[in-house]
Amino acid sequence: MALPTTPPSGFRDFLPDQVAARARAVETITGVYRSFGFQPVATPAVEELSVLTGQGGGENEKLIFKIMKRGEAYSRALEERSDLADLGLRFDLTLPLARWYSKHGSQLSHPFKAFNLGPVWRAERAQKGRYREFTQCDVDIIGSDSWGAEVEVITAILAVFKAFGLDGVKVHLNDRRLVDQALAAASVPEDKRGHACVVVDKLDKIGRDAVIAELVASVGQAAADALVKSLLVEDGAATEPLDKIIAAVKALVPAASIAVDPSLMRGMGYYTGPVFEFRHASLSGSLGGGGRYDRLTEKFGGPSTPACGGSIGFERLMLILEETGKNGDTAAPDAVVTVFSDELRGRSLEIGAALRAKGLAIDVYPGGGKLKTQFKYADQKKAGYAIVIGPDEAGRGVMQVKALATGEEQALTLDEACALIAGKH
Amino acid sequence: MALPTTPPSGFRDFLPDQVAARARAVETITGVYRSFGFQPVATPAVEELSVLTGQGGGENEKLIFKIMKRGEAYSRALEERSDLADLGLRFDLTLPLARWYSKHGSQLSHPFKAFNLGPVWRAERAQKGRYREFTQCDVDIIGSDSWGAEVEVITAILAVFKAFGLDGVKVHLNDRRLVDQALAAASVPEDKRGHACVVVDKLDKIGRDAVIAELVASVGQAAADALVKSLLVEDGAATEPLDKIIAAVKALVPAASIAVDPSLMRGMGYYTGPVFEFRHASLSGSLGGGGRYDRLTEKFGGPSTPACGGSIGFERLMLILEETGKNGDTAAPDAVVTVFSDELRGRSLEIGAALRAKGLAIDVYPGGGKLKTQFKYADQKKAGYAIVIGPDEAGRGVMQVKALATGEEQALTLDEACALIAGKH
Repeated sequence: MALPTTPPSGFRDFLPDQVAARARAVETITGVYRSFGFQPVATPAVEELSVLTGQGGGENEKLIFKIMKRGEAYSRALEERSDLADLGLRFDLTLPLARWYSKHGSQLSHPFKAFNLGPVWRAERAQKGRYREFTQCDVDIIGSDSWGAEVEVITAILAVFKAFGLDGVKVHLNDRRLVDQALAAASVPEDKRGHACVVVDKLDKIGRDAVIAELVASVGQAAADALVKSLLVEDGAATEPLDKIIAAVKALVPAASIAVDPSLMRGMGYYTGPVFEFRHASLSGSLGGGGRYDRLTEKFGGPSTPACGGSIGFERLMLILEETGKNGDTAAPDAVVTVFSDELRGRSLEIGAALRAKGLAIDVYPGGGKLKTQFKYADQKKAGYAIVIGPDEAGRGVMQVKALATGEEQALTLDEACALIAGKH
Repeated sequence: MALPTTPPSGFRDFLPDQVAARARAVETITGVYRSFGFQPVATPAVEELSVLTGQGGGENEKLIFKIMKRGEAYSRALEERSDLADLGLRFDLTLPLARWYSKHGSQLSHPFKAFNLGPVWRAERAQKGRYREFTQCDVDIIGSDSWGAEVEVITAILAVFKAFGLDGVKVHLNDRRLVDQALAAASVPEDKRGHACVVVDKLDKIGRDAVIAELVASVGQAAADALVKSLLVEDGAATEPLDKIIAAVKALVPAASIAVDPSLMRGMGYYTGPVFEFRHASLSGSLGGGGRYDRLTEKFGGPSTPACGGSIGFERLMLILEETGKNGDTAAPDAVVTVFSDELRGRSLEIGAALRAKGLAIDVYPGGGKLKTQFKYADQKKAGYAIVIGPDEAGRGVMQVKALATGEEQALTLDEACALIAGKH
């Protein structure tokens, strides 16, 4: 029986143009983050299950792809009916960063400005636009309790959007402590506060009326009324440090739209102060977000360390770039050198190498057969030119260069061909 | 109890300079492969277990990290005592490419020239220099039975080594069909041929005498004598297509050292024709290799498709580059802008943004505190300059720029500072 050719449900293959676009996006993001003095960090795809489940990952912990023990350890676990899995795929980059920092912090500058790009895995129910393997782009400052950290993280992420020519990104800003105050002021019982936040967080998805109805059902009419007045309002009061963050972001990025949104929650349980989210009119949900999480490294045995970080929704960014056509470049070579005959293949390979040495991307046709098929190949690869070296050209030290867009053909020397092909760009 | 801060056994964290060096190496390799007209391919980290175990991966299949079924499927499997795992981490990039090509081939140009860079996972016993997560860099031509495919793959990989300034790479070349002929000529029984190949393949590791002793034990004195004469010789006869490959590679890369090595096996069971390996005097084992594998896509229900590919040992390459110091660049910013006081933080952030707009990598100190600490931070980050804007400088519209190597300090305008810092490179 033939093996399946489709990737597992929720996982994706990428075609050459997509891979090229994604790689270019990663380079752009990396360049912007580096220009802000953030330094790259990398951790393994695989972590100890105890690390993945022993933290404030909340809902995400349920979504861990668990890796089975191997060899004897597996047999023993089966026999003893103990845990069959010991490792898991990371479900975000924040938790691995906290572990990494706890391990390597003494070798780093402080505060430490980190960025981390890479895939994460979540065993979510597969649905349109939701993948089980997706890329995150995190940027974090560990060891600073200054509002300047929030400003650096927010402006770095805004600079990434700008680098992609993406206009109209709005920054929603809130402070988890303001939310806590509002919950206390509304006399919401401690054990119902988490759920009230989850309900308010759905504002964007289910709308104001549905949120209010759920709040009433959950915390009662009086508390719900109070929360509507404190959390479900368009603009909140910008108390410190939000006022300083807003003023600085506006000064640094005059085009930025940034305001307090009292209903902004951000799901993760580990946030302790300001939280923020990036939204764009062209899509529901967010383009990214983040916040202050001052206690994440404690679980690794270190001292309480102030930290603040943000993340770009890479898959959503790629989707917008694709839809807006800001994703133009392809994986196409500059020219394809055809192979006239197997005897002349060596000559074609040499011409290919010579043009490559001049900085061009040159594809020598790797098979045999008719020139017509080879021209079709060059067309399919979206090459600018096709080159033919037959016995006549080989004897005269020239090559036939055909512009594939116009069909125009001319016999050129190596230098002439190089100038023509390079001039295309 | 504190959570472990060390990654799982056999897995690695990377520090900023290492991440930067690895990213730069990936960019170099990508650039070279693209310059040959190879197009990027990407597949998920996770494949169906049936795909991973249903192929010619041989020994590698035993090394699969298996992922447990989730939710109800897991409970059912436990109850029914059926397979608890349904997915696995890929152990190489060749098998996923064969699946990918079988799925997407109709949308591609033919022959198809692919490259694929990414991590793979193997549950090997952890030991020095052997990792459970490591990067592979594959380059493949699918759909060509011409020796030109081997030449393109070999010269592209040689161009990668050249791009890293790595001299003295030797190409060992053999043909699996010559090995088969030698085994038949030596009258080695069919069921002992695989083992005889495994023994000969150890030549590099255990030496000639040990190989001969093992051969005698395995196939008897007469057959061993014959194999010693046919396989354990320095130079083999270059019969077609090896002669054409050697001539073309020498013509294209005059500095290349390439010769037939009758003892070269390459482990993977799926090779069907020419095989090759790249070696360097500075390390035992290989820097990479590959060969022709004409039947790999058949298992996915497609027609028999000729294919040829090679791979660079990325981790070994990084090791050599590190040892030879060809790995110099760091993740350092051009300058660190210090923060004189929280009142003047906004000014520092603005200067940072202004210098960044001129193309510099500028780190604004993200914390608070003494300037002395901030200068130390700039030193640790290997920045070229530290910038101070106190009340006096802010009033005069200048900044103090200190060259960290010399300690020299001067008050400069934005343009002057920009010119000084940019001139550093």
